[in-house]
Amino acid sequence: MKICIIGCGAIGSLYAAHLGKLDDVEVWAYDLNQAHVDAINKNGLRLTGLSDFTAGVNARSDVSEIPECELGIIATKTMFTRSAMEAAAPIFKDGAVCSVQNGIGSEEIVAEYVPRVIQGTIFPAGHITEPGVVNHDAGGKTWIGPFASRPAGMDEVEKLADAINRSGMDCLAMEDARGAQWTKVIFNAASNAMGALTRLPHGVACDQEGVRKVMSVIMAEGVAVAEALGITLDSDPEELTDYGREKAYYHPPSMLQDVLAQRLTEVDALNGGIAKYGRELGIPCPMNEACTAIIKGLEASWSLEIPEKH
Amino acid sequence: MKICIIGCGAIGSLYAAHLGKLDDVEVWAYDLNQAHVDAINKNGLRLTGLSDFTAGVNARSDVSEIPECELGIIATKTMFTRSAMEAAAPIFKDGAVCSVQNGIGSEEIVAEYVPRVIQGTIFPAGHITEPGVVNHDAGGKTWIGPFASRPAGMDEVEKLADAINRSGMDCLAMEDARGAQWTKVIFNAASNAMGALTRLPHGVACDQEGVRKVMSVIMAEGVAVAEALGITLDSDPEELTDYGREKAYYHPPSMLQDVLAQRLTEVDALNGGIAKYGRELGIPCPMNEACTAIIKGLEASWSLEIPEKH
Repeated sequence: MKICIIGCGAIGSLYAAHLGKLDDVEVWAYDLNQAHVDAINKNGLRLTGLSDFTAGVNARSDVSEIPECELGIIATKTMFTRSAMEAAAPIFKDGAVCSVQNGIGSEEIVAEYVPRVIQGTIFPAGHITEPGVVNHDAGGKTWIGPFASRPAGMDEVEKLADAINRSGMDCLAMEDARGAQWTKVIFNAASNAMGALTRLPHGVACDQEGVRKVMSVIMAEGVAVAEALGITLDSDPEELTDYGREKAYYHPPSMLQDVLAQRLTEVDALNGGIAKYGRELGIPCPMNEACTAIIKGLEASWSLEIPEKH
Repeated sequence: MKICIIGCGAIGSLYAAHLGKLDDVEVWAYDLNQAHVDAINKNGLRLTGLSDFTAGVNARSDVSEIPECELGIIATKTMFTRSAMEAAAPIFKDGAVCSVQNGIGSEEIVAEYVPRVIQGTIFPAGHITEPGVVNHDAGGKTWIGPFASRPAGMDEVEKLADAINRSGMDCLAMEDARGAQWTKVIFNAASNAMGALTRLPHGVACDQEGVRKVMSVIMAEGVAVAEALGITLDSDPEELTDYGREKAYYHPPSMLQDVLAQRLTEVDALNGGIAKYGRELGIPCPMNEACTAIIKGLEASWSLEIPEKH
């Protein structure tokens, strides 16, 4: 079986390296980071931290060198989904692609380019430490299921889950994986937006009474949208928020890390994704709309040039 | 007539210097910036920019050296109102004090310390360029009127307005000056909060469609609170916002300047003031509540120390 990882950064590498250990899976990786690609091809893909092994992966920055694959996993940052899929579409002429990206809205784009789509929600985390080497920071489950508008078959979903499980990660194949996805996106929208705007780590932000209330407003809007979509959440995002406060008090949410590094954030896939569904369904999401607008304004400030005379 | 300026920074100095030109007014100034106080006493208080003159002002950092005054003007940043009035109260045993501070909520505090209070709303702006010298950046009207819960008499209000007018500034004495105050605070809450959070100058922020919509949400909440208070606004804060976009496209609102300098902001007197009245009146102000909480969270981030091991 051939599997191609599209976007073999921190997250993509965790899946690529694990799957690379399996004898019956040939792992390909499409990534534009040439130094990372070269290092993987030369020395294999190495994981450190929670994992400690090196696996063989065929990395390419040129899609034409990658054979057709039955399965794909897209793990780019959400703002690169379209450009990545535009390039990678030929790999999956008859394949199914699973998004393990943040937030919501990526599967809709993937569905424009491949015949069948799997939606994924993941907890594992990592970061690239040097070309070819990724630190496995956090473990946790991967939930996958057919994506409604262009669904992969459950046989394909189970085949992918089976491979991920045999590779040493923890994956659950579900008929309807939307509950897991929306639970995580609602929690993430609150934690990330408040982190990005207050510049406080998650737990510290939770301890600011007013900020914690805004998180609740963001989450209540998300829960209302999920309900209107007929989605049963896996768990209460409020509990996830408090659990995160206990377990990761000083953790800077990824959107805060992006803001501090003046990198484009994934707000469109988090608060923006909730707000977009809210607009379509007639569910008012003023706080998610506001967070999206403000964070996109903040992104705009990084490239603002003020004329000397004005 | 003796008038004492409490907080003789940029704004206080504009009034102190102008009033200092009048033969029938003895101007005192209470300020804790010793270098500024010393320079004023040595060389007089000098205005540059829109104004260009030097006037005699008796500046003191020790309240006990200041005689009793009939009138006062408090011009400190809003977070220093209480400490300033606590110290300055003996100057006004039988005096009336006018607040020309930003936002709302200061008059309530002033009223705890002096017999009679005048509320003021102002457009003039300036900044200290060196001790004893203040640049007069912007002109504009000053509106003053008796403060409801502990009102000065209209005779006192008119006496102060007359002195300010004769000194070369433009002051309007009103029976009810709340319309002017709330118009400005509603506009300022929107412009300042969005500037502080997006880090965009006023006009640039206005041109971000989503950000402009959040400004409208902030202002609509403020208008609803003003209506519930029975206040008739002077003009439409939406128009003021668009006028500001035309006239001061690259102007960084003061709260953005504070955020960039990591100084405490006046959010409690702007969005926080609207939200506080909203809570008392049962008018929901979720966006003003959120902006207040987020900006106070941001202030907290400046002094956050993250332990090395966590």
